[in-house]
Order: sequence, then structure tokens, then C-alpha cells
Amino acid sequence: MNPDAVATAFVEHYYSTFDSNRAGLANLYQENSMLSFEGVKIQGAQHIVAKLTSLPFQQCKHQINTVDCQPSGPIGGMLVFVSGNLQLPGEEHVLKFSQMFHLMPTQQGSFYVMNDIFRLNYA
Amino acid sequence: MNPDAVATAFVEHYYSTFDSNRAGLANLYQENSMLSFEGVKIQGAQHIVAKLTSLPFQQCKHQINTVDCQPSGPIGGMLVFVSGNLQLPGEEHVLKFSQMFHLMPTQQGSFYVMNDIFRLNYA
Repeated sequence: MNPDAVATAFVEHYYSTFDSNRAGLANLYQENSMLSFEGVKIQGAQHIVAKLTSLPFQQCKHQINTVDCQPSGPIGGMLVFVSGNLQLPGEEHVLKFSQMFHLMPTQQGSFYVMNDIFRLNYA
Repeated sequence: MNPDAVATAFVEHYYSTFDSNRAGLANLYQENSMLSFEGVKIQGAQHIVAKLTSLPFQQCKHQINTVDCQPSGPIGGMLVFVSGNLQLPGEEHVLKFSQMFHLMPTQQGSFYVMNDIFRLNYA
């Protein structure tokens, strides 16, 4: 599977899980994972998912505009850079966001999110 | 020097060089560096700087809004995520952009850019 296909499959899986069952994202993180969410740093799968599930909206819908992907080094990591729109309930306008993921290979031949940085792009 | 200070110093150096002497960015890349610029992938310091210096504007001004930083793994790499505005000559409105850098340590105790992904955030 080529890196761009892996990145696209990851992005589709990540945001469809975020939009339908946020707690299910726990499987994508590990203990050394880090999330920077709007400037707040959180470490570890459990704390990251606690943060994501406590965001002050129940439903949301991510729409992906661009996905870029590069290998991150000799041990099989992959950088995935996403831009898109976020629709929140009751909001007339979408919010623009950018997010990057650093995926690292697992022993099971899959990937987990080691680094995750999310920012809204305010107009 | 703590990682956030390194990231901030790098970001200030990168964009001030970009805005004043784009060819000077060559020192920040190496042969294995990759740039994704608006979806176009370019590898190697020479090709990357050729791309950046051939962009269809002579002067520009980056204004940084946010800088996020995380360690990228066991060999001392650092992920830097930037959002900001780009002012081009003759344009009334600024363009919003997001950019990520993966910095890796050099043998001289400094950092070079191994990965660079740039996207404009169109409204």
C-alpha cells in the first residue's frame, strides 16, 4: 500500500470515527502519544480521548479539503497534514481547521498516532 | 534551550529569511529534505530552494499567528506547526496559511528541515 493511500485511509477513518463515535479514537493513540489542541498539550491515549470527548459539542462533521503525506524518517513513520472544514451544530458557518498527524508503525503492522496538532484557522 | 524556544527561534528565522532573502533558506534544508508546496512534492535542498525562489512574487510578508511544537521521536526530532497570514504585493487581503516543519538535529548541534508541508487556507 503506498503512503498516500495509507494517509487517505487513515484520514477517512479518523474523521468518520471522530464524527460518529469519538471515544473510538482511543485505539489510534498510545501512551506516548501527544495532542496539541488549540495550544493545549495533552499526553497519553486516555487523556487525549478524555479531552476530545469533553469538547463542548456533541455532534460535528469534518469535511476534508486537502491531505498531504511525507515519510518522516528511517523507522517507517509518516507525516499527514490535513486542511478542512468543521461544521458544528447550530452554527451557520463552517470553521476552517488544519491538523497534522505523525503516524508510527505498530508491531501489528498498522499505525498509531504519535503526534497530533490541531488548530482552527480563524478568519 | 527548551523545545518551544527552539521552535519559536526557528520560525522567526525561517520567515524573516523567506521575506528578505529566499535563497538563504538553502542552509536550512539537506539532500533528504522534502517540501510539499500546495500539493507539489519536491526533494532536496537545491530543488526546494529553486521552487521557493521561483514563486511568482518578489516580495512577501509572513505574519505568524500560532506556533505549536512537539518532540517527534527518540532521535531528537521536533515537529513545528505554524499558522499565519501571508501578505503579497498588490493584494488587498492577506492569505491565510498553515505550515508544518519536521526539524532534525544536525551533527553540528543545530537543526535542519527534513519535512516541510505548506498549504494556503482558502476561505
